[in-house]
Amino acid sequence: MSDSDTSIHARSERFLSMLRHCQVLGLRVEHADRQGLTLRLPYSDQLVGNPDTGVIHGGAITTLMDTTCGISTACVLPEFEICPTLDLRIDYMHPAEPHKDVFGFAECYRVTPTVIFTRGVAYQTSRDEPIAHVVGAFMRMGKAGRVMDAGTRDGGQGA
Amino acid sequence: MSDSDTSIHARSERFLSMLRHCQVLGLRVEHADRQGLTLRLPYSDQLVGNPDTGVIHGGAITTLMDTTCGISTACVLPEFEICPTLDLRIDYMHPAEPHKDVFGFAECYRVTPTVIFTRGVAYQTSRDEPIAHVVGAFMRMGKAGRVMDAGTRDGGQGA
Amino acid sequence: MSDSDTSIHARSERFLSMLRHCQVLGLRVEHADRQGLTLRLPYSDQLVGNPDTGVIHGGAITTLMDTTCGISTACVLPEFEICPTLDLRIDYMHPAEPHKDVFGFAECYRVTPTVIFTRGVAYQTSRDEPIAHVVGAFMRMGKAGRVMDAGTRDGGQGA
Amino acid sequence: MSDSDTSIHARSERFLSMLRHCQVLGLRVEHADRQGLTLRLPYSDQLVGNPDTGVIHGGAITTLMDTTCGISTACVLPEFEICPTLDLRIDYMHPAEPHKDVFGFAECYRVTPTVIFTRGVAYQTSRDEPIAHVVGAFMRMGKAGRVMDAGTRDGGQGA
Repeated sequence: MSDSDTSIHARSERFLSMLRHCQVLGLRVEHADRQGLTLRLPYSDQLVGNPDTGVIHGGAITTLMDTTCGISTACVLPEFEICPTLDLRIDYMHPAEPHKDVFGFAECYRVTPTVIFTRGVAYQTSRDEPIAHVVGAFMRMGKAGRVMDAGTRDGGQGA
Repeated sequence: MSDSDTSIHARSERFLSMLRHCQVLGLRVEHADRQGLTLRLPYSDQLVGNPDTGVIHGGAITTLMDTTCGISTACVLPEFEICPTLDLRIDYMHPAEPHKDVFGFAECYRVTPTVIFTRGVAYQTSRDEPIAHVVGAFMRMGKAGRVMDAGTRDGGQGA
Repeated sequence: MSDSDTSIHARSERFLSMLRHCQVLGLRVEHADRQGLTLRLPYSDQLVGNPDTGVIHGGAITTLMDTTCGISTACVLPEFEICPTLDLRIDYMHPAEPHKDVFGFAECYRVTPTVIFTRGVAYQTSRDEPIAHVVGAFMRMGKAGRVMDAGTRDGGQGA
Repeated sequence: MSDSDTSIHARSERFLSMLRHCQVLGLRVEHADRQGLTLRLPYSDQLVGNPDTGVIHGGAITTLMDTTCGISTACVLPEFEICPTLDLRIDYMHPAEPHKDVFGFAECYRVTPTVIFTRGVAYQTSRDEPIAHVVGAFMRMGKAGRVMDAGTRDGGQGA
């Protein structure tokens, strides 16, 4: 890894360490560089949603994907910056297989001074066989992120 | 509450008790009847995403809304049934105010034998001043929920 | 109407007049001011999707809502500016009633120097009984809208 | 093409011929078989949204994608059936290049007796370089598509 990638990795871990319900899920940074972020959700009996099938409950995967998109903003920002979620969409393609970890990958496909658009997948074996697709937009809170004065309109967002 | 509403309330609590990362967030059932489900996310310093503002991090609200939509299926189903998420969309309208609990409300606006469509809001004071709007679709896994044989297509979903 | 509202109305009509497939649908500006834009889709036998029910085909309503969101940006911008769509989501709540016009309403709920977020409903009688909910984000192409240099990333969008 | 594919192609053209605002855009069936549907939106000066760039206006592409998803249901259904839109989401990745046709591709990735979930891309050169991603759900109106009696809930949708 280049120095820059090391720093992206370190910032991603810092982000993740702040989110306690993510730690409970066991989320960890698998890989992070300028091209994107991969988080791992380790399989655990405690995450099983359906005892008959042993499949991880969907909420854990939603949290994985939300977190992956949110932290992937660290891949394109020069320094640590909290970027609140503006919107998030997840579409589940296939059920996850039981007894296997789930990975979340996300990249920033459009970076404007005020909003970052991210996109990614949840997968187990390969990104080409996604369990779920995800798209999310995040607000930059730096100087450029300040919204226009638009009456009662409010450009910021929930942390 | 009628017997039926009591039973909806009890099933909602059972659902919630299965989701450990939701318990870490402190989520609890505020109200549940045939018209919909309300969950409460209590404010806590541990959930703060932005120390400068004291605002709860967005991931906690995303988890609240995902969980509220998913469990709201209990409001229209005759018995306990696990309904995996098919898709989920959240749009944040305003940031949450610090030091105040956040509520999630969801109702099932379209119920078919195989898919349930839900819709709701996150709010603090009143549903009419939403922090976020959410829409989610969930798969019924009962007999009627079995998908048509469509080659490699897969109708089930991640628990 | 104030001078400003007149100007918003005029710009909305100018926008609409550029979109030929919207003219074929008969779309027209019903109302436009700083609070939002309302377009009307007149009922017509030519728009019927289901001859058994006389209901307008969904594609006409999707086009109505896409157009309403896109042109609603004129309500908050100081002058005529083309804002390409970044994303769009429509959720249908109820079928439209036959033999009645459909209205689309949209407002800009978050305005940043680079991206405008809009939200609205399709309805027939009242906005409180929506046929559909819609959310859309649009890129500002002015000076502030120029995206950061981010390698192969591309912030602009399809006009 | 097999007999079955011919029939899918024919049904797709029949669907398209019913939608007048699509004919104005010049939409036509490029390919249709059990794996999915491809429609073509021919470039035309009349569709230009931004005279400075010559780029097709986004509304035409939204209509292309909505129509492609909706008609792709013909790829998995045994006979002609009108499937109203339940929801639709489009995410624009890159602007379209001027003076080039745009293609819409969609496939049905989940088929239940009541709801069909579709997914696709808009592209110019190759599906691997998408201009836009789209996801849409459609209601089946046949016998199996009748919704459960759920009080005021309404499972049908706008034609």
